[in-house]
Amino acid sequence: MATMDKIFQGFEGRQAKLLEDGSKNPLAHGAALIEGQVTPLYEARIPILDQGFLHSDLTYDVPAVWDGKLFRFNDHLDRLERSCVKLRLEPPMARNEIEQATLNLIAKSGIRDAYVQIIVTRGFRFVREPAPSGAPADNFIYILVMPYVWVMPHQLQPFGGEAVVARTVRRVPPGAIDPTIKNLQWGDLIRGLLEAQDRGSQYPFLTDGDGNITEGSGYNVVFVKDGALHTAKKGVLEGITRQSVFDVARNAGIPVHLDDVPTSLAYEADEIFMCTTAGGVMPITKLDGESKGEVGPITKVIWDGYWAMHYEPKYTTEINYES
Amino acid sequence: MATMDKIFQGFEGRQAKLLEDGSKNPLAHGAALIEGQVTPLYEARIPILDQGFLHSDLTYDVPAVWDGKLFRFNDHLDRLERSCVKLRLEPPMARNEIEQATLNLIAKSGIRDAYVQIIVTRGFRFVREPAPSGAPADNFIYILVMPYVWVMPHQLQPFGGEAVVARTVRRVPPGAIDPTIKNLQWGDLIRGLLEAQDRGSQYPFLTDGDGNITEGSGYNVVFVKDGALHTAKKGVLEGITRQSVFDVARNAGIPVHLDDVPTSLAYEADEIFMCTTAGGVMPITKLDGESKGEVGPITKVIWDGYWAMHYEPKYTTEINYES
Repeated sequence: MATMDKIFQGFEGRQAKLLEDGSKNPLAHGAALIEGQVTPLYEARIPILDQGFLHSDLTYDVPAVWDGKLFRFNDHLDRLERSCVKLRLEPPMARNEIEQATLNLIAKSGIRDAYVQIIVTRGFRFVREPAPSGAPADNFIYILVMPYVWVMPHQLQPFGGEAVVARTVRRVPPGAIDPTIKNLQWGDLIRGLLEAQDRGSQYPFLTDGDGNITEGSGYNVVFVKDGALHTAKKGVLEGITRQSVFDVARNAGIPVHLDDVPTSLAYEADEIFMCTTAGGVMPITKLDGESKGEVGPITKVIWDGYWAMHYEPKYTTEINYES
Repeated sequence: MATMDKIFQGFEGRQAKLLEDGSKNPLAHGAALIEGQVTPLYEARIPILDQGFLHSDLTYDVPAVWDGKLFRFNDHLDRLERSCVKLRLEPPMARNEIEQATLNLIAKSGIRDAYVQIIVTRGFRFVREPAPSGAPADNFIYILVMPYVWVMPHQLQPFGGEAVVARTVRRVPPGAIDPTIKNLQWGDLIRGLLEAQDRGSQYPFLTDGDGNITEGSGYNVVFVKDGALHTAKKGVLEGITRQSVFDVARNAGIPVHLDDVPTSLAYEADEIFMCTTAGGVMPITKLDGESKGEVGPITKVIWDGYWAMHYEPKYTTEINYES
């Protein structure tokens, strides 16, 4: 994490600027595009009859903007497309329209480090009452832009956070709800967060109920053992930040094992980190109350490599804030 | 189902009247109470930042109004209270206020056979960022009233519907998301509905992934074998309609077995029915394409007893439509 000071100082400078802008631009605190209308995020409302609310029947994706550029935007749009196909949803905009609308909304907000949500919901028609054959699907799309979200505050990242292996709740199995379709059905993940808080922690790792670690409440979990990375193959989101971690590891010659991760490995690991678009690579230095020492060398390599990718043109999409 | 004609004729008469009222009262198609404001249901909107949408972090309950009276309203309010405690939600209204607001909203709508949803959501504060100790929870409540919903159309009930045992999806296990807390995280149940439709049916029964039947997409499932009822004890909603079924069975001297229900029992059962507030006791006469014969004698006894309860004062709450 040799680059940490530089990365965070840049962020803090832009944050200070964003706070100033907030007094001039009502969208600088967040913006939403709903039914063609742009509104400040805090005023944005959706129909209560949307099945996206009434049965959480939706999928979504979360690209992030860092230092004025979208990161791996195409990968997020690819995954959103795959999720929609699996759920039999048809976004009411074509992919290039979604892309353009997202770029425009970010530009209008002026937010240079942003958390972006593109949500496709079932709309008014409950799956129980399908449309007549050939009729339009009438699914909805909502696009939200807000200041960058840190699952682990950036001030904590040099030291690492404290995680627990949840013991009162297990992860929903993929045979019930497919975690590769990004969803907002967080019942198990919310229970995990509550248990973690009860135990003085913030970061639960959920098991599959069969002796393996899956993922946490919005992040994949990676264990480092004998110089190699280990992370769960099944029962988890196929994270795009996780993919970046794999890319950095490959370039650095660090082996990656994508397989079942026995719970015992969590306790035997030399290093642990979590990864997600909302916070990047987040070191864990305490597990179930036991110290794992300081942030380890492999975590540091991954951390630096991950943030360096944000400045490589092949991973980034410019936003035209002048428009 | 000796009383079926009478029950349904009364309903159809009131429906015709409701359609007339619809031209005079905009709430007759449905009404919502959101943040103290009453609106027609189809115009009702909620903040997109409600965690009830953003993480489906909510619970709810569904009392029904039949022939101008709420049925087992206290039982629904009791369960809502229990669900809130389990999820650490505090409704922003006291129980008697919720009760009164619901009665008023139904009265204003003029709907005499209604499906009512009382939804308590986390509000703006994500579980990951808990309120300071002693601060108010700031959870939200939404109340919806709409014309009675039939999970099985009443025209189909004399003949019974066709169910399938889902084979592409299992029910979420209670160790992941507790089904006794009524929730709108329908990922598995939606997959079940899609599979059922693909197989030419409408009613999936989901297994627990361990050889037992649990429940369907919004209904408990009851099997009749050798004169006794069998229904799942674990991994299911503790249905209030199911409770009514137990009450009728007890009065009629029909034994009830609340236990694991092996999948094989579904195929060996003499009769099958589903039960839910949105439709009552709903006979199944075909399973996985195999006919089970006509609606059976025990199903008929339960059906009649269930609807007779709707006219017993101890189970009903008057609504003052004159107010």
